[in-house]
Amino acid sequence: MRVSVIGGSSVPPDTAAVATELGSLLADRGHTVVCGGLGGVMEAVCRGAREAGGETIGILPTARREDANPYVTTPIATGLGHARNALVVLNGDVVIAIDGSGGTLSEIGLALAHDRVVAGLDTHDVDGIEAVDSPAAAVTHVETAATKHE
Amino acid sequence: MRVSVIGGSSVPPDTAAVATELGSLLADRGHTVVCGGLGGVMEAVCRGAREAGGETIGILPTARREDANPYVTTPIATGLGHARNALVVLNGDVVIAIDGSGGTLSEIGLALAHDRVVAGLDTHDVDGIEAVDSPAAAVTHVETAATKHE
Amino acid sequence: MRVSVIGGSSVPPDTAAVATELGSLLADRGHTVVCGGLGGVMEAVCRGAREAGGETIGILPTARREDANPYVTTPIATGLGHARNALVVLNGDVVIAIDGSGGTLSEIGLALAHDRVVAGLDTHDVDGIEAVDSPAAAVTHVETAATKHE
Amino acid sequence: MRVSVIGGSSVPPDTAAVATELGSLLADRGHTVVCGGLGGVMEAVCRGAREAGGETIGILPTARREDANPYVTTPIATGLGHARNALVVLNGDVVIAIDGSGGTLSEIGLALAHDRVVAGLDTHDVDGIEAVDSPAAAVTHVETAATKHE
Repeated sequence: MRVSVIGGSSVPPDTAAVATELGSLLADRGHTVVCGGLGGVMEAVCRGAREAGGETIGILPTARREDANPYVTTPIATGLGHARNALVVLNGDVVIAIDGSGGTLSEIGLALAHDRVVAGLDTHDVDGIEAVDSPAAAVTHVETAATKHE
Repeated sequence: MRVSVIGGSSVPPDTAAVATELGSLLADRGHTVVCGGLGGVMEAVCRGAREAGGETIGILPTARREDANPYVTTPIATGLGHARNALVVLNGDVVIAIDGSGGTLSEIGLALAHDRVVAGLDTHDVDGIEAVDSPAAAVTHVETAATKHE
Repeated sequence: MRVSVIGGSSVPPDTAAVATELGSLLADRGHTVVCGGLGGVMEAVCRGAREAGGETIGILPTARREDANPYVTTPIATGLGHARNALVVLNGDVVIAIDGSGGTLSEIGLALAHDRVVAGLDTHDVDGIEAVDSPAAAVTHVETAATKHE
Repeated sequence: MRVSVIGGSSVPPDTAAVATELGSLLADRGHTVVCGGLGGVMEAVCRGAREAGGETIGILPTARREDANPYVTTPIATGLGHARNALVVLNGDVVIAIDGSGGTLSEIGLALAHDRVVAGLDTHDVDGIEAVDSPAAAVTHVETAATKHE
């Protein structure tokens, strides 16, 4: 399935490491990563997915595919600015949030508005998302939820 | 100035009353209300503003201006679905949130991403927004913040 | 009613004069001008409308209301780039095109896709739009079409 | 490279055959097809590309990936309605138009606004696009133009 991974565009090394581990796990499980295509969590999760041989879709706020991080296999340019956040969550079957500030919060809100299951790793503490404590727990949560949803 | 008012599209009467009072205060102070144009908090705040002689802009998710509530003076059709949430906060100088679920949460996130000051009345408890306990306090907060910002 | 006026963002003086005359006529007839909010035909038509006491809505490609030309009474910031062209035609009951290049052509196409009547003054020669030879003829055409449409 | 193929969503068999032949040629040449993801020319070109082992990206107007035709390998849901037309042309390096009405015309306009080379097969006769008489000629034209552009 497709998993949208959302999070800060500039994060400390340990957060990036968590995102990379998550990307690797998702690819190992055969999932495609969908993200905003830029840096920070977006780049780290794509790197992890790519190193494990997975596919990554980056839905960019800009009109230039060249703005995608080097680990995005399918860049989608939008030129929509923050309005593209809606597309990031819309294109995943489930969502995993890591860290993040306003942009990530907006994506969590949009995910809930679109009835997506959201697992959160060290991110905003809001009703409706499942706080988990490891990338593996995040993957288990969204896989289980997706199965029930069918 | 323009004040974006965001909140649930279906709310209990007491929440609607708070929104209507807020709309009235904003119009009295010469501010234009910007909202998502539909029901619930959106309709209640527009009603308050209209009854006090104010102007209201409703930025709709649909492609039909006719979908605006009857208290919107300037309906803007978008056909963008939830992606229009970005436009709702972008068109206010400041933001006031009342109640609300995922859609409102996304607008709070977008407001923070666009560096808008946000006052919150009985809404999501997230970092970066100022919790206030009355429509009057909300107006005071955003007016003061806007002045400092200049 | 609302009339979307589309056209080049940089035009020679005589084209601007046509747009200004059109804006004046539309305002005299009680119509609101909707446009893309920037320069060229957009600014000229807004100027004409304002000088005749009319209202003008400018739906901007940028995220900044300040980018609107000085004759826009209600600027709407979108941050959507050219994707905002869809909103320009969607917010008029009918459309009048003057001159223009690719952006205007896209708006003509979107107008036709949304079943809007389009009058064209010295603009792209495409099927489905009515070529007229004066601002007065353009206004007559769209008013007549709008009446029939009801 | 990526080639955006635009055209009518409901076309006669011979037009569909042209689109299928074009898709096959593009895939043979190693290009990825980008389109609006629905029926008519969009489905026919994707079918041709898939049968030749190529990749296809479908950028949908709806919020549901399930709305993509069965030959789209990477569906992108947008929920933007006709505003997604901007994304269709933005995600190709060059554009080929086949037949089509208002929606296609808007995409031609957007392509020109974004400085994309456009080859046209039996489509709108507008300045700035190169009329060609076969899928092979269309491919040659856009490949040559892309090379010069580098």
